[in-house]
Amino acid sequence: MTVALRDVTLRDGLQTEQPVTTADKLAVFDALVAAGVTDLELCSFVRPDRVPAMADAPELAAATAGSGVGRWALVLNPRGAQLAAAAGMDQLQYVVSVSDPHSRGNAGRSTAAAVAGLAAVLAEVPRGAAVEVTLATAFGCPYAGPIPEADVLAVAERCLEAGATGLSLADTIGTAVPSEVRRLVAATKALAGDRPVGAHLHDTRGLGVANALAALEAGVDRLDGTVGGLGGCPFAPGASGNLALEDLVHVLEAEGVPTGIDVDRLIEAAHLACGLVGGPVESHLAKAGPRFARLAEAPA
Amino acid sequence: MTVALRDVTLRDGLQTEQPVTTADKLAVFDALVAAGVTDLELCSFVRPDRVPAMADAPELAAATAGSGVGRWALVLNPRGAQLAAAAGMDQLQYVVSVSDPHSRGNAGRSTAAAVAGLAAVLAEVPRGAAVEVTLATAFGCPYAGPIPEADVLAVAERCLEAGATGLSLADTIGTAVPSEVRRLVAATKALAGDRPVGAHLHDTRGLGVANALAALEAGVDRLDGTVGGLGGCPFAPGASGNLALEDLVHVLEAEGVPTGIDVDRLIEAAHLACGLVGGPVESHLAKAGPRFARLAEAPA
Repeated sequence: MTVALRDVTLRDGLQTEQPVTTADKLAVFDALVAAGVTDLELCSFVRPDRVPAMADAPELAAATAGSGVGRWALVLNPRGAQLAAAAGMDQLQYVVSVSDPHSRGNAGRSTAAAVAGLAAVLAEVPRGAAVEVTLATAFGCPYAGPIPEADVLAVAERCLEAGATGLSLADTIGTAVPSEVRRLVAATKALAGDRPVGAHLHDTRGLGVANALAALEAGVDRLDGTVGGLGGCPFAPGASGNLALEDLVHVLEAEGVPTGIDVDRLIEAAHLACGLVGGPVESHLAKAGPRFARLAEAPA
Repeated sequence: MTVALRDVTLRDGLQTEQPVTTADKLAVFDALVAAGVTDLELCSFVRPDRVPAMADAPELAAATAGSGVGRWALVLNPRGAQLAAAAGMDQLQYVVSVSDPHSRGNAGRSTAAAVAGLAAVLAEVPRGAAVEVTLATAFGCPYAGPIPEADVLAVAERCLEAGATGLSLADTIGTAVPSEVRRLVAATKALAGDRPVGAHLHDTRGLGVANALAALEAGVDRLDGTVGGLGGCPFAPGASGNLALEDLVHVLEAEGVPTGIDVDRLIEAAHLACGLVGGPVESHLAKAGPRFARLAEAPA
């Protein structure tokens, strides 16, 4: 059993934080790559007045060119895709929120309009570029509540028809439970054929690892995470958001799923990244350490 | 699919804390019962000079008699069993640590001596009383590291032969992963026949819920938890210990496994219990709330 892992710290983890410098982001990038991470979401090409933390996307793209790892950028429209392509990024994520009220609230357009926008995004990217569609609120919406599986699959199908090169199912507000993840991943895989299906999971209600393992059982191709679980939860202050990549790597390795990532070095990267935004490292692994890594001396 | 749940806040959760008054413990007991909890570990009958937080075990037993719920007490030897029986407690947990160095460090005797002591404990309890054996370090030991499954099963078998009325597999230091839980629960169930097999799981490395669901798949009869995840982790300061009962109830209900427990009232009990020991409530559910419980107003 194998699964690809993508670190999304530099975009999803830092997006809603106070901006950090490009040099600091590059230090986190280097630490992640040194730990063995091979796919990273770096930035988004969006309006810098709306998301100031992402304003240095072109600089970050230029500075990481030739690094030999997969570099992903989020875009919301053809203009973003144009800027990303001009910056030399050829792995894009285009967001479509399955829930109409969330799509309107978050992106100012209906779900149907977001799906319709995909063709224009695809027209901006070079031949051979990846344009993954992130299906936001695939497991639940902060406004509408539960999302019927049929709605997700209908949107997925339209995106595949339009030419999405892959899909990612996002548990945007951390409401998914394992049976739902297993079912939706399997059904989406059946639609997507050879095109990869990922899952972007949150640990908001303590289900991050359980959902990741359920996705794996259903054949998911890629899982996302951020070091320290940075970012991902604007709706419940104090609650966990993104699944911590080190928690995920730890359980995968223990379950015999190779990740190529050194969990100790990943925890170092978590300290570096969380330190930049002034927060403690909230992952389980950063607090407890890998299992059996440091055995205690038996009492005499 | 069904599973019994046992709250172990009043013993396991409070054991290593500064003592709280009997009246305060009874307030937590009442809050838990009001939330729908039907099995509770109340206290341990151990030397009050060693564990001052448990010194009021007889008073707690007397005050909760006739409450109509299952009331459990931990004992380590025949003297404890005698005191528990005299206090009217008839559901006992007797601890045997599968790892010899842990048994010697924690209880001052070898695993074999702890197993041998079970007969004398059974001799002290009234006919029909339950004496569950808690198999500590069943998934790992802070001194010895991984514990071979065969060692756990050998100890389990000897305890069943001696007359244990049930078993509980304890992930004492939070090192278990789901495949291990699934395998050990299934193998122990096969040995135990009609006698119930429980699992006592920790969330130290973010695996509490994933392991609980794995135990459920393997047919576990009972799962333990504490409100707010209180207690359970003396080895890694700051790390999570016990699986939070509200996190467990939430996922079970979402997965269609009825618990009879009201998760909102359980979160109230968590605030009460954690407040007594001066700590914040660290469970995911206390921070984020049940999924879909409070939908936001969609932006206009």
